[in-house]
Amino acid sequence: MKIGVIGGGQLGRMLSLAGTPLGMDFAFLDPAPDACAQALGEHIRADYSDQDHLRQLADEVDLVTFEFESVPAETVAFLSQFVPVYPSAEALRIARDRWFEKSMFKDLGIPTPAFADIQSQADLDAAAASIGLPAVLKTRTLGYDGKGQKVLRKPEDVTGAFAELGSVPCILEGFVPFTGEVSLVAVRARDGETRFYPLVHNTHENGILRLSVASSEHPLQKLAEEYVGRVLDKLDYVGVLAFEFFEVDGGLKANEIAPRVHNSGHWTIEGSECSQFENHLRAVAGLPLGSTAKVGESAMLNFIGEVPPVEKVLSIADCHLHHYGKAFKAGRKVGHATLRSKDLATLKARIGEVEALIGKG
Amino acid sequence: MKIGVIGGGQLGRMLSLAGTPLGMDFAFLDPAPDACAQALGEHIRADYSDQDHLRQLADEVDLVTFEFESVPAETVAFLSQFVPVYPSAEALRIARDRWFEKSMFKDLGIPTPAFADIQSQADLDAAAASIGLPAVLKTRTLGYDGKGQKVLRKPEDVTGAFAELGSVPCILEGFVPFTGEVSLVAVRARDGETRFYPLVHNTHENGILRLSVASSEHPLQKLAEEYVGRVLDKLDYVGVLAFEFFEVDGGLKANEIAPRVHNSGHWTIEGSECSQFENHLRAVAGLPLGSTAKVGESAMLNFIGEVPPVEKVLSIADCHLHHYGKAFKAGRKVGHATLRSKDLATLKARIGEVEALIGKG
Repeated sequence: MKIGVIGGGQLGRMLSLAGTPLGMDFAFLDPAPDACAQALGEHIRADYSDQDHLRQLADEVDLVTFEFESVPAETVAFLSQFVPVYPSAEALRIARDRWFEKSMFKDLGIPTPAFADIQSQADLDAAAASIGLPAVLKTRTLGYDGKGQKVLRKPEDVTGAFAELGSVPCILEGFVPFTGEVSLVAVRARDGETRFYPLVHNTHENGILRLSVASSEHPLQKLAEEYVGRVLDKLDYVGVLAFEFFEVDGGLKANEIAPRVHNSGHWTIEGSECSQFENHLRAVAGLPLGSTAKVGESAMLNFIGEVPPVEKVLSIADCHLHHYGKAFKAGRKVGHATLRSKDLATLKARIGEVEALIGKG
Repeated sequence: MKIGVIGGGQLGRMLSLAGTPLGMDFAFLDPAPDACAQALGEHIRADYSDQDHLRQLADEVDLVTFEFESVPAETVAFLSQFVPVYPSAEALRIARDRWFEKSMFKDLGIPTPAFADIQSQADLDAAAASIGLPAVLKTRTLGYDGKGQKVLRKPEDVTGAFAELGSVPCILEGFVPFTGEVSLVAVRARDGETRFYPLVHNTHENGILRLSVASSEHPLQKLAEEYVGRVLDKLDYVGVLAFEFFEVDGGLKANEIAPRVHNSGHWTIEGSECSQFENHLRAVAGLPLGSTAKVGESAMLNFIGEVPPVEKVLSIADCHLHHYGKAFKAGRKVGHATLRSKDLATLKARIGEVEALIGKG
C-alpha cells in the first residue's frame, strides 16, 4: 500500500518511520526542496495547488492524508475526485478555521472561552467591549505555534489590532485563567471505533510547545474523551486527531483541534504500545487500531532552533532522540527527545537531565 | 552523519529505521535492483567487488558497516583505505570462515563441538572416523540459514559428501546433543565498553530461525557474557555481534558468531530500551551505548515465504509487524512480528496467537 502525504516535514517523516514496517510506501508532496521526509519516501516537489502534481500523487497512491491542516480547500476537493482522502474535506474545513471550529464546539455543548467573529476593526471594538480584556485576537486560518495572534491586555492594544494581523478574518477569544494546558490524542477508524491516549500535560513557551508529560489516571480523562468523542463522531472522522484544552476550575475548556498527528503525541512512539503515527496509518488504511496503553511513563521535550549535541542526549538513560534532519534555525522545531521511566516520580525528577541540554532556541 | 552499509536487505532497512531519528543518512551498496533498504536511503546498485562504486560509497559516507559477513576480503581492504570500517577487516575475516572462527573459540578457551578442517574427501573420511557420527559437514564460508551444510548420520552419508558441497573447503563438526539453542547479542563501543542483551532462546526449523524468546535471568547469562566478552576483546570489536550457543549438559558450547545485527535480536526494537540496530549505530559512530534493559517480555516470530494478512497480525494486542517489503518467495525471510507482554507466562501463552497465522512457508 502506498500512502500519499500532503506535506513532507517531521510529521511525514515519523509517519513513514511508523508505516514502513507495516509494508507501506510513501510519497510526500511538498514545495520545499529540503523537505525532511524525503529521506524516507518519494518527494513530489510541487506547490499544494499544482493540479498536475496533485494528479500525479493521486495516481500513484492508494490514499492521501495530511501533515497539516492549512491545506487549501481546493486541493482537498481536487484530490478527493481521484483517491480516498483522510481526514475528510469537511473535517479539514472545520479544523482550519477557528470560527468554524469554535462554533462546532458550541453546537456540541463543549465549553469554550467566549469568542466572536471579527471581520473588521469595528467588530473587534464591539467584541472587546462585550467579552472584556484581556483577550486574544487570532487569525481564523493559518495560525500555528503562536503565530497569527496577539494578546490584547489594555484598551490601547485593541486599537489597530485588526490591521496588525493583516486585516484578515479573525476571532477574538476571551482570556481564560487556566491552571494547565492538556491535550487528548485520539484515533478513530473507518468503522467508527475510537481509542484515546492518556491526557497529556503541555507546557508552552512563546506559543511553542516545550514539554509534554503523559498523565496517569488524570481525573479529567473521561470528560476529555466525552468531548473529543463528540467531535470525532460529528465529523465522521478517520485518523488521529489532537484536541487541546485549558484546565479551568477543575473542568475543561476547548482551545483547538488538530486534524492530524500532533506534537503533544510524539511521546507515544516509545511511550505507548502503538504510536499515534502507526495508529493514524492503521485508521486511514482501514486496518485494526492498535492499543493506546502506556509503556512506562513518558515525557517529550522539544528541541527548538537546534538539537543539542547528540552524544549528550544519548548519554541519558532511556532517552530517545528524534532528529528531524532539518537545518537549524531559531524558533524552528528541529527535533525532540522522549524520556521514559518506570514511574512518574522518577520521570519527573529526571526531566531536568534533558532540560539542562536545551538552550533558549 | 552518513552511514554506508554493504548490503541493502532487511537488516539495512532496520538500521535506517533506527538511525534516521538520530539524524543519520544512509547509503546501501547492493547489486539487487529490488534491495528492500532502498526505501530508506540511497541505493548504490553495484557488485560488492566493483571498486568504482565502492570508492563512490567511501567518498559519500563517514563510515562503512556491513549487513552480512560474507563480504569479500578485498572489498573490506579496499574500503578501509578511504573510510573507517566497522567491524574491522580482521573481525570479518574470522567470522566469515568457520575454521578460523572455531579455532579462535578454542584458543580463547570457549567450549565448542569437536571440529576438523576438511580440504578433501580423504580429510573427511579421516575426520568422520575420529569425531564420529552423526556429524555436520559445513562449507567454511558462505553458509547461512542451513544452506551449505549436510548432516552425516550413517557411514554412507560420508561417501561423496565433500563433492556434494562443491569440493570447497569445509569443516566437520561433531553433532551436539543440545537441549536448547541460545544466542547472546552484544554491543561493544570504540572505547571497549561492552553491553549485553539478555540471552535469547531460539527455535529453528530446516535451519531457519522461527522463534526467539528473550529470557529473564537465564542461569547461563553470566557464562555467555564471559565467553562473548573474550571474543569481543580479542577482535577489538566495534558494533553489534551475535553469538549462537548450544545448551549442553547445563553449559554452553559455541556454535557461531555473526559480526552484525542478528535475526535473534530483532525483538529488541520493541523489547529493550535501545534496540540492537540503534546500539550498533551508536557503537560504530562513536556515540554512547544505549541501555540493553528489557521493556516487558518479548518473543519474535519470523515470517518465512510470506507475511500473513496484515490486518490479522495487527489485530493481536501489543504485536508489532515488521514487513520487509520484499517479494514473497518460499524459504525467504520476508518479515517478522514481535509480541510483547508484561510477564513471561502471559507471553508464552500468547505466542500461539501469532503462530496460528503462520503457514509452513
